[in-house]
Parts: sequence; C-alpha cells; structure tokens
Amino acid sequence: MRQQLMKMLTDRKDEIIQIRRHLHAHPELSFHEEETSKFIRDFYKGKDVDVAEEVGGGHAVVVTIKGGKPGKTIALRADFDALPIHEETGLPFKSENDGVMHACGHDGHTAYLLVLADCLIKLKEEIPGTIKIVHQHAEETPPGGAKGVMESGILDDVEQIFGIHVFPFGESGEVYYHSGYSMAGRTYFNLKVQGVGGHGSSPHMANDAIVAAAYFVTAIQTVISRRLNPFDTGVVTIGSFDGKGSFNVIKDAVSLEGDVRYMNTETRDKIDKEIHRIVSGIEAMFGVKTEFTYTNDYPPLYNDPDVTKQVVASLEKGVGEYLTAVSEYEMLSGSEDFAYYLEKIPGVFFYIGAKPKGTEQVYFNHHPKFDIDEDALLVAAKAVADVVLDYYKLD
Amino acid sequence: MRQQLMKMLTDRKDEIIQIRRHLHAHPELSFHEEETSKFIRDFYKGKDVDVAEEVGGGHAVVVTIKGGKPGKTIALRADFDALPIHEETGLPFKSENDGVMHACGHDGHTAYLLVLADCLIKLKEEIPGTIKIVHQHAEETPPGGAKGVMESGILDDVEQIFGIHVFPFGESGEVYYHSGYSMAGRTYFNLKVQGVGGHGSSPHMANDAIVAAAYFVTAIQTVISRRLNPFDTGVVTIGSFDGKGSFNVIKDAVSLEGDVRYMNTETRDKIDKEIHRIVSGIEAMFGVKTEFTYTNDYPPLYNDPDVTKQVVASLEKGVGEYLTAVSEYEMLSGSEDFAYYLEKIPGVFFYIGAKPKGTEQVYFNHHPKFDIDEDALLVAAKAVADVVLDYYKLD
Amino acid sequence: MRQQLMKMLTDRKDEIIQIRRHLHAHPELSFHEEETSKFIRDFYKGKDVDVAEEVGGGHAVVVTIKGGKPGKTIALRADFDALPIHEETGLPFKSENDGVMHACGHDGHTAYLLVLADCLIKLKEEIPGTIKIVHQHAEETPPGGAKGVMESGILDDVEQIFGIHVFPFGESGEVYYHSGYSMAGRTYFNLKVQGVGGHGSSPHMANDAIVAAAYFVTAIQTVISRRLNPFDTGVVTIGSFDGKGSFNVIKDAVSLEGDVRYMNTETRDKIDKEIHRIVSGIEAMFGVKTEFTYTNDYPPLYNDPDVTKQVVASLEKGVGEYLTAVSEYEMLSGSEDFAYYLEKIPGVFFYIGAKPKGTEQVYFNHHPKFDIDEDALLVAAKAVADVVLDYYKLD
Amino acid sequence: MRQQLMKMLTDRKDEIIQIRRHLHAHPELSFHEEETSKFIRDFYKGKDVDVAEEVGGGHAVVVTIKGGKPGKTIALRADFDALPIHEETGLPFKSENDGVMHACGHDGHTAYLLVLADCLIKLKEEIPGTIKIVHQHAEETPPGGAKGVMESGILDDVEQIFGIHVFPFGESGEVYYHSGYSMAGRTYFNLKVQGVGGHGSSPHMANDAIVAAAYFVTAIQTVISRRLNPFDTGVVTIGSFDGKGSFNVIKDAVSLEGDVRYMNTETRDKIDKEIHRIVSGIEAMFGVKTEFTYTNDYPPLYNDPDVTKQVVASLEKGVGEYLTAVSEYEMLSGSEDFAYYLEKIPGVFFYIGAKPKGTEQVYFNHHPKFDIDEDALLVAAKAVADVVLDYYKLD
Repeated sequence: MRQQLMKMLTDRKDEIIQIRRHLHAHPELSFHEEETSKFIRDFYKGKDVDVAEEVGGGHAVVVTIKGGKPGKTIALRADFDALPIHEETGLPFKSENDGVMHACGHDGHTAYLLVLADCLIKLKEEIPGTIKIVHQHAEETPPGGAKGVMESGILDDVEQIFGIHVFPFGESGEVYYHSGYSMAGRTYFNLKVQGVGGHGSSPHMANDAIVAAAYFVTAIQTVISRRLNPFDTGVVTIGSFDGKGSFNVIKDAVSLEGDVRYMNTETRDKIDKEIHRIVSGIEAMFGVKTEFTYTNDYPPLYNDPDVTKQVVASLEKGVGEYLTAVSEYEMLSGSEDFAYYLEKIPGVFFYIGAKPKGTEQVYFNHHPKFDIDEDALLVAAKAVADVVLDYYKLD
Repeated sequence: MRQQLMKMLTDRKDEIIQIRRHLHAHPELSFHEEETSKFIRDFYKGKDVDVAEEVGGGHAVVVTIKGGKPGKTIALRADFDALPIHEETGLPFKSENDGVMHACGHDGHTAYLLVLADCLIKLKEEIPGTIKIVHQHAEETPPGGAKGVMESGILDDVEQIFGIHVFPFGESGEVYYHSGYSMAGRTYFNLKVQGVGGHGSSPHMANDAIVAAAYFVTAIQTVISRRLNPFDTGVVTIGSFDGKGSFNVIKDAVSLEGDVRYMNTETRDKIDKEIHRIVSGIEAMFGVKTEFTYTNDYPPLYNDPDVTKQVVASLEKGVGEYLTAVSEYEMLSGSEDFAYYLEKIPGVFFYIGAKPKGTEQVYFNHHPKFDIDEDALLVAAKAVADVVLDYYKLD
Repeated sequence: MRQQLMKMLTDRKDEIIQIRRHLHAHPELSFHEEETSKFIRDFYKGKDVDVAEEVGGGHAVVVTIKGGKPGKTIALRADFDALPIHEETGLPFKSENDGVMHACGHDGHTAYLLVLADCLIKLKEEIPGTIKIVHQHAEETPPGGAKGVMESGILDDVEQIFGIHVFPFGESGEVYYHSGYSMAGRTYFNLKVQGVGGHGSSPHMANDAIVAAAYFVTAIQTVISRRLNPFDTGVVTIGSFDGKGSFNVIKDAVSLEGDVRYMNTETRDKIDKEIHRIVSGIEAMFGVKTEFTYTNDYPPLYNDPDVTKQVVASLEKGVGEYLTAVSEYEMLSGSEDFAYYLEKIPGVFFYIGAKPKGTEQVYFNHHPKFDIDEDALLVAAKAVADVVLDYYKLD
Repeated sequence: MRQQLMKMLTDRKDEIIQIRRHLHAHPELSFHEEETSKFIRDFYKGKDVDVAEEVGGGHAVVVTIKGGKPGKTIALRADFDALPIHEETGLPFKSENDGVMHACGHDGHTAYLLVLADCLIKLKEEIPGTIKIVHQHAEETPPGGAKGVMESGILDDVEQIFGIHVFPFGESGEVYYHSGYSMAGRTYFNLKVQGVGGHGSSPHMANDAIVAAAYFVTAIQTVISRRLNPFDTGVVTIGSFDGKGSFNVIKDAVSLEGDVRYMNTETRDKIDKEIHRIVSGIEAMFGVKTEFTYTNDYPPLYNDPDVTKQVVASLEKGVGEYLTAVSEYEMLSGSEDFAYYLEKIPGVFFYIGAKPKGTEQVYFNHHPKFDIDEDALLVAAKAVADVVLDYYKLD
C-alpha cells in the first residue's frame, strides 16, 4: 500500500500547492475562520466519511475515516487560522484580506492534510483502524483551538496524534524532531499596583506606585536566578510597565504585563508559586494593593519519547526517497497549542524543513515576508503518510 | 505720610477688588499675557512714571517711580499670569477664557499693587529714593518670568525687593513669614533608557530597558536616604515611568520623568551630582544608553534674615490696626520664581492670609475652586506699604 | 543674692577644676560608677540636705536642697559615667583606669554642679522653693540612667529641669541653645533572616538568605526617601550585615543590625511602622523567616519653647560679664538620655562652649583625645546659677 | 585478546580491592600526595615501561606503555588525592590520617587503573600503539592537577583520553555517560567594596559599603535572569557577605565571595563579562572603590560526541557480561579537572555505578560516610579495557 499512497501523493502535488495558494489568498483570523472552515467541509462533501462541524467551540472540522478493518484510532491535525499581519511578500497569490496573513504556514498544513486525507479515504478499506483528521481553528490565539477540541471529547478514543509545522530555517527535504519537552509553555500576567497619588514634593502624603512596581521588577529577577533548577529553562519578561504620568505628581497606580516561558509543568508551577509570592511581598512591603491576573496559556509541548522513537524510525524509511535527513533539533522557545493534545494523548509534533529556494534572506514565522518552499508540502504529506502506514504496519 | 497712605488705600479698597475681578474674568496663560499687560500699561498711562514694556523676554511691565528726594532703590513685585485650569468656582466674575483660570491669586497680587503704586506715585515727592513696580509675567511656567526680568538688568540698582502671596489657608488679617530658606527649589529631569528590544522568550538577544530603569528607580532612593544631611530637605520623585508595551515583547526603551525639591543650593548641587552618578551607573551596569535632561528650575527661595527681621518689625506696626498677627510659618515645599530675585537682591517674600469667609472647605492654590477673601487684598496693600514706609523711615 | 553667688563661684573655680581632674583620673563605666557615686555622697556629708542614694536602679544620687521659703521645685542634673575608651590625651590627670575614659565631659558636668550645689546650700535660706540636684549615672548606655531616675518618682514634684553639656566645638565663653526638638531620638534593631542553606550550584534546593537580606537593604531606603515628610529628619543605618560564609555554599542565615534616628516622636513612630512593614514584606516575598528586635532607646530631646525663651533671657544677663554670647544652634544628630526628663518635665538642655585653648585640632566627644577648656566649667556654673536665680526671681 | 584481558582482570579482582583499601587507609591531601605517589611508582618498579615522576608541578606519575606495534597514542587517567574530611564510615580500613579521607573514590580509581595497566603491560606486544597511564594528583583543589599535567606537554601526542568516576547513586553494574557538555565549569570571585565609614547618624559624611554591596547583590540576579539564553545553564551564588560591624557605625568596606557555574565556555564568557559590567556599574553608581578577583577554575567538561558514540558502542559489548546497562545520564552541576584534558584532547569521562550493597542510605561524594560497592572497581577496569580494545580494534 505504501507505494500506492506515495504515488497518489506525488501525482497530486500541484493540487496541494493550489489549495495552499487559495487559502493563502483568503486568510482569516483565529476564531473567525468561517470561509476556511466551509472550504474544508466542501472538500469532504460526498466522501464516505463522518464530518463533525464547529467542534470545540470554534470552526474546527473533524473528519473521521473509518478503516475497512477494526483497529486503533489515531489523529492527524492541521491548523488553519491566520494572523493580523499586513503581508509584504508580493506573491501573486498574496492575501486578499488586507491586514490578515497566513504568516505561519497554516495554509500549507491544511493543504497537505486535505490531500493526504483524501488519499487515505480512497485507501481506507485496507486500514485496520480509524483515522481522525483534525482541521483545527485558532492556533494563534489563546486559549487556542486545540483546547476546545480536546474538551469536546471528540478525540477521547485516539491512541496517538501527530502534527507538523513547516520550518523555513530548515532545509527543504529534511525533517526535524525533538524528544520529550520540545516547545515552551507560556503564561500571561497582568499586575496592577495601586498606591496613592500625590504631589511630587510630598511623598509622605502619597504611596508611590512606581517605586513599589520598580522593586517588584527587581525582585522577580530572583525567580529565574535563584528559584529554578539551573538545568531547567524559564523566562519571566515584563514587557509593559505602564506608568506614564506627570513629572511632578506621584503616580497612584501602574500596570505591568508580562510573559512566562518554561519547558515543563514542574517549572511552570514553580514560577507560578514564586511570582505570586513576590506579588504578596510587594503588598506587604509597600502597603500597596494589587490586582493580579496570571493565566496559563499553551502548556509546554511534550513529545512522548517512545512515540518519538517510533516516528523517527518511520520517517527514516523516506530518507533517500523524498527525504535527505531526519535530524534531532533543539528545544524551541516558541509555543504551540498542539501541546494540549499531547497532555492527554501520546504523540509527536515535528518540523518539516521549508526554506524557500533561491532567496537570500529567510524570514521567521510571523514576519510580513514569511514564505516557504512549496515543495515541502509534499514532503509533509509523505512524511505523515509514513507515520500512519508504519503505525498500522502497512507496507 | 503713613496715615495719609493708609487712608488712600482704605478709600480705594473697592477699586482693588474691581481690578482683581476684571483680571480674574480675563486670565491669560504664562508667556501669553498680552491683554493683561496692556491693561496694566493703560493703568499707568498719563502718570508721571517711567514704564518699561516687554521686559525680560516676556510681557512684564516695570514702572519706575522716582521719588522727590535722592535715595536708594527698592522693588515691589506682583505676578500676573494664570493657569491652564477649568474654573469651577461659579463666581459671577469667573473666567471668560475657558480652560484658563487665575487659580493662584495673581489677579489679586496685581490688583493691590496697581493701586498701591498709584498711591505711591501721588505721594512720590516725599519719597527719598526710587521704587520699581515689577508687574511680572509667567511665574507659573519654567524658566519663570522672574529669570528674564533679572537678566534684563532693569533691577540691577535695586537694594531690596519685596513680594507677597495670598494664602488661603491663613486667616484673613494675618501675615506669615519665614526667615532664610523658605520655599523649595525645583529641578525637572527626563531620563530615556535605551536598551534593545526583542522577543519575550529570548532575553539574551535583547537588553531589557524596563529592568534597567526599574533598578534605576530603586537606586535613586539612596540619594535621599544616604547622601543628604538628615537635617536637610530633599525629594526625588519619578512621576512618570513610560514603558507601555506588549506583554511578550522585551521593551527597547522607556522614559522616566521626575521632579527634585530642595531647600538650599548645597542640597540642590548634591542631589544633582548623585543623580548623574546613578545615571552613569545604570549605563555601566546594564549596558544601556541614556539620554538625560536635568534642568534646574526655580531656585530655593531665600529670605535674607536681616531683611526679614526688618520686615517683621515694619509689619508689626500694623497689628491691631489692619493686622491681627505677624506669625512665623514653616518652610513650604512649593516653589516660586521670586527666588530668582532673591538670589541677587536681599529681600523678603511673605504670605497674606486670605481664607475665604463663610466657606466650609478651603481649596489650595491650583485647585479649580480656589478662592480668596478679597478683604485680604487691602491687607496686602497696607502691609507692603508699611514695609516701604519703614524702609524709607517715613512715618 | 546674684552678686554673692557669682562671687562664691568665682572664688571656687580652682576647686571645680580639681574635682573635675580627680573624676577624670578615676572614670567608671555606666552602671558601675560605685566610687564616683561615693565621692559625690561624701561631698554632701554633713551638709543640711537630704541625700537619696542608689536612685533609679543605679548609682544615681539625688540631693534635695530645701529653700528657706516655700515655693516650686526645680531640678539640676549632671551625669557622671565614663566610656570604654583608651585615653590618648597625655594629660597629667589622665585616666588611671585603663580602657575607661571621661571622653564626654561628664567629669566636668559633675564638678561644676557639686560646687554650684554647695553654694546654693549655703544660700538656701533665701530660696523660695526646693532645688533637686540630680547626679545621674549611666547616661552613655541604654536604657540610660535618666529613665530609671524618672521612673523612681523622685522628680515627680519638679516643675522645671535643666542640664548642660560641654561642647568643645563651641567657643569657651559662649552658650548655645536650640528650642523645640533639639537632639535625635534613637532606636536599635536587629534582624535575623533565616533561609535554607545549600550548595552554591543548586539555588533551587536552598533559600538564599543573603539575597533576601540584600533586597531588604535596598527596600528600607524607601522609608527615608518616600515615607517621611521631607521637612522631617530621619536616618536608618544598617551598620552590620553579618553574612560571612563560604564562596560556594548558599548562606542559610544572616544577621543585620541597625540604628534609627529621628527628631520627634511622630517620625519615630512612622519609621517604626514602615520598617516593620518591610520586614514582613521580605518574609512574604522570599519565604524566609525573620527574627526582628526593634528597641527604642533615648527619645528625641525636646526643649520646651517657652522655657527656652525664659532660659535665654536668664542667660543673656551674663553676656558681657562671664559670657560673650548666647547663640541659637542647629539640631544635633546625637542622642542624650536627658530627653527622658523632658518627656515629662518642661525644661532645657543647653551647651557650654568649651573649645580647648591653644590647640590646633579639636576632638569631638568620644574621641580618645577629647578635651575641654576647663574655664568653661565656671561658665557652666554661673550660667546654670543665672537660670536658677531668674526662675526664683532672685536678683 | 579481549577474552584474555577480561580473565586477567577477573582473576585480579581481590588485588584491586586490596590496593583500594590500602590507599583508603592512607589518604593524602591535594598537592601533598607524596606517599601515594611513591606507592604508585613502586608498583611499576621493574616493569617494562617508562615512568615519569613529579609531572606537571605535582606528584603525578605518567606511565608510558609502548605497544609492540606502531600506532596511535591514547591516555587513561585516574586521580589519587583525598579530601580534608574526618571519616565517619567506621570501615575496618578507614583513614589512618585523621582529618583526611578518600571521600570521592579516587582510591578506587587508582586501584583499578594500576591493575588494568599491569595487565596491559603484560599484553603490550599485541597493542598497535602507545597507552599513557596518567596517575594524577590534586583533582580536588584548584587549579587542579590536570592543568599542570596538560601544561607539561607529556600528553601532547595523545589522540584520545578516557577517565571514569565511581558514582554511588548509580547501580553497581551500570555505566552512565553524557555526550557533549556534561559537567559544570566553575569560577570563584571575590569582591571588596570600599566605601567610607562614618557615624550611623550622618550618612552624608560617609559612603555606605553595605548599601552599595546590597544593590550589587540585587543587580547580579539579572545576569542569570536576563542575560543568558534560557536554554543554557548558569548559576551565580554569593556565598559570603562579610559586613559585620556595629549597629550605629556606617560600614566602610565589605567583602563578598561567590561561585559561578556554567555548562559551556560561551556561557562562562558571557557571565564573566556581565558580572564585570555590574561591578563597574556599582563603582559608577555609588562612588565606591572595588577590588575584584575573578578566577576561572575547572572548565566545563566536554565529552566529544563522536568519541562518546564510539565509547558507548565499546561499552555495549559488556552488557550481559559484566554490565547490566549503558545509560545516558543528565548533565551534572559538579566540576572535575578532567575537563582540562578534554579542552585539548577528544575523549570521554564517564561514570561507573557504585551504589553500596545492603545499605539503606547512600551518601554523596564528599560526605564523611561516603562509600562505594567495591565490585564496581572490576566493572571500571573491564569497561575501560573494552574502550581501549575497541579503540585499537582488538577482539
């Protein structure tokens, strides 16, 4: 069956690219992907599959391909939302929705998976199990579409789940993986420090919120420097210190906003506890009031080591064929809502090298000039196909 | 002559009040007091005095009353600018220039001094010396009209100078003084801390301006706590910490603005040196760049102790007559550009109690409901008259 | 009577000096002044006075001189303890008790008061009231002998109390005073910060007491810089940061010791509250435990303004006679247990200029080379005599 | 040849243990290992090898085994110094040199290597190359014996180098390795902050060294929290803050001592630069003088990844025979002077599981009750034998 599937994919390479270009021209923001969702549902119209719409409180579409033989259920996921970025690529198929752009490659993810799903549908009689195709909304915006999809229960019977991301800094033709914790978890926080305003010449009549907040900023440095295991990874950034006022008026209140990153849940919980401690310390120390919002976003993404080994073995079959290499890659400080699936379902999220050909400069995800090598989409389709085939021990 | 002058003033009390109300209804902002200045010049039209216009780079008017006999020169000063405040007093003669208000009593200062000057002109043959009447612009806005007037040289021959301020927290009928350093000097500063922006998850690729600025805020606390003589007075306030940004982006630059207060020039110079030291320390410590503006505004106001004694003696003559008491008062943390005169010319700036009658609540200077007891203006005129008379030993 | 008393004192100048030299050669530490106390009691032996021994839980001697006529009671106080200092003056009558020295002039205080008391005893029939001579122990060591004397109740009937201090930076022949709060109050504190020790490479297994204590040191700067009225005086010094350890071991605990100064009780209470707040803040912020001792020593010394006026008037009688000037002096940051008397009894503590003649360098109190001009002791006797005479309206 | 060598080692197991016990009973401190060195030299007496004594400025012994055939040179290293620890094991062969203890297993390292070397000497005709046996002094004390040995040039011709450490937390029968950076590098620093002392009540006359040093402690937290790549490892600990003084005296100077850890030289250099920056910042900011000593000790230990793969392959031959497993292990925060060899010569330092049998509690290296399972020493000998055999492709 492998040969047949690979040939089918090769033959439909142009179709993958056309779908990708159509989606690229019609990007939609997270939680507002009506047209994209409809496009996907239309694709499956008339096919012998079960299509669940509006899954998980958003526009997700979950397609169930029931194989001809009994067996385990796995899931393949592609996200389909875009970003509030004004595209500057100058591509012929560039965004027709000004200010919105597929600057993270989700158009490509969806394109390859639609075609792969269609091929698998055609071959489903040979498949000993069920494959759920997860077309997911809102990866870019917390709380993330994955959270809702998971909570919907539609994946409760899934044994393993797989996803990929195009990676423009990796060579086209290579795939990359990391075992264990691989991408950072993220927390957002907002701290309002409420003191008492007053005249600049009379500090004793006021309670200076800027001073209290500044001491807070210096104190939270200790969370990373003294509280974490030095072999663990953590970041606490205060990206916003909103304390604009008048030079001669003591500021009554300031607002801080920040971002926390970590590579495992233990570190997440440790930082959580320590920052809360310091917030309470600032209250006690300076007699200010605080309002503190601390929201865990995407968890750290954990690729099950055993499944990773299995996937690497599957992928290595393609080396020399459609792949040049399967390489281990470093942990990444970025976050990804696929992590929600991996909290419950063993699986792997890996990267498809997609460096554009012939360009001098490569732009990172979320850049207005972000682009990929479209050849990588066929690689993605074949790589995921090999993972599926191997899972079901189909040659 | 004293009896005659006092009677003249008493007789013209209503005129003082009417002038004050006219000015109150037509307030003008600092450095833009065209109409007020014209009103003043018109007042002196046809009188036997020398009127200098547009003195000191602003709309100041300096009137020279040459006495009938030779002798020393003194100066009396009243300021005439208003504030960018929307008046909320509901007075019948409230501001007709919306958003501008005589909320600091300069209308009253000008009113009493015009009438007093006119009386002195009428009696000038008996005066053994010259009296310069300084109608000063722009007291409220740095660098202050007084600075320009002093630099113009028009007061170079002045032996002593006197000024007053209405004081709504003091009882009408009382006058208040403080010998030596009496009102605070003030410095404005602006510190831009320039680091390098970056993604919140990658602090090592950036140089966090919020962190550097927060350490600056904690470090400058030591200027007051550890560098000043504990018997001296100093305040360093950072009223503005402008560092608004995104929660997950390391801030590239922030701007701080602040205010320094001190009661003598030694303290001013000490704080100046120490803050500059800490700014250079932050650069060295965090590798940020800084742009630092540090501008001394009004100096600390120094009432010459000998002249103060003399003035107190002069004023005590009025006790039981138009005054209930002459009281020593604390140093004030407010600033006043009269201090520029007193840097060079011995003199006294004192306070005329002006608590409004029958009100429950007294509003401080610069409040939208600021008001005075208009009876205090006659007290001001008489008190300054006594200072002048006594200076020239006129009974 | 004044003339008579002044002559008696003049005639006994040498005796004053001899007593001072005897005491100087035989200094005793606070609370251990057995011989000094005996010397004093011996002095009064056989005189018609009431002598109370071992007053106030120490070696204080209170001598009651009952005047020949009924009237009010006043008190005169001299302290008599010495300091744990190795004398380096090279004086012929230098300390015979090595390591102990009268380096604060209490020898002189006692000498003049003994002779003055004896003169007053001789003239007591003319005195319309009672004079209590307070020879006080332990001025140098908290809680201070004055506290015990006050608590003994022996001064409960005293209307006014007076004391002096020799002042080697003031000219011999001058006296100095300050009205109102004049000398600083003092508080001692000790803060133990208890964290958890550990290996230097594993901060997450420990809780670094040095880091917590360092943040405490930076945070308490705000007590002075942001909590006090800038016109008030306050100092918080951490004189000891005891955190010696090994370079590669995280310190489990450190001890800080410090000193607080203030010029009035309101400031004392404000600082007290704020430091306690910051201690609790450090506990909350870093999860350390603290042990905090905060002990108010001598209160700020308050010279009653009315009594000060009265004393200044009394002293001015001596100008041109035995005094060259009576001058106002600044507040002093030193502390003095006479403040305990003045908390309850109106009175004045003033300074007798005592700059040694012919020396190039003047040494401050508590210096191993501290010395005074002995002529100042007669000045002290006469000045205090004038205060007493004037109080009783004796000419 | 492998079979022969393994049998020889098995037969001499008791000898290994006896040598270990002898050395254990006669521990010597770093740089003072005279007897140990002599014992080693005596062992080689009469054998057909070249013995270099007193290598590298210490008591190191380097034995050159010239194989019977031409070929490459490799080195095997065992350290032989002990620690200043009072032994508390109660072993029959416990330290006879009170206060000195083999609490880090170097006795075992030396024992296995002596016997292995002797076996290799016996078989040397078959060896196609040269093996240098490095008996190294002073591993425990900076700058470390390895540094001197390297600088001596005696290993200049070595292609690969291998060393092991007994590891009481690993199971006896297992070996552990980590590829790449594996053990921390270490830097010692000492910072003297020199201010100006003074009286606690007069901060303006002094320059408080405790305050400056406390701000330094808070500022260096940013080195780890904001300057390092969050995926890198670094620790900066101030283990000693020596600022003991009097509560009411402003401290003139304090001394800090600290410890820096890192897992690669880039991090080392980054921290170095940043700490120096903050030291200069404290000088600029507070006007204190500093004396700063910053000494890099042992570098981070780097196991060449290619050589590690080769060694793992070699070791896996023993699994099922004398080994139960070859396992990857985490990075360790401890330091080891073997890192000096690996800076210049590719090689591997790996760990031999040596958990004592039948004990409830395992004690870590440097503990007074540290002990090992002596069976692990034969494992060490065989494991290193396999590495050597495989290197020379000897079966």
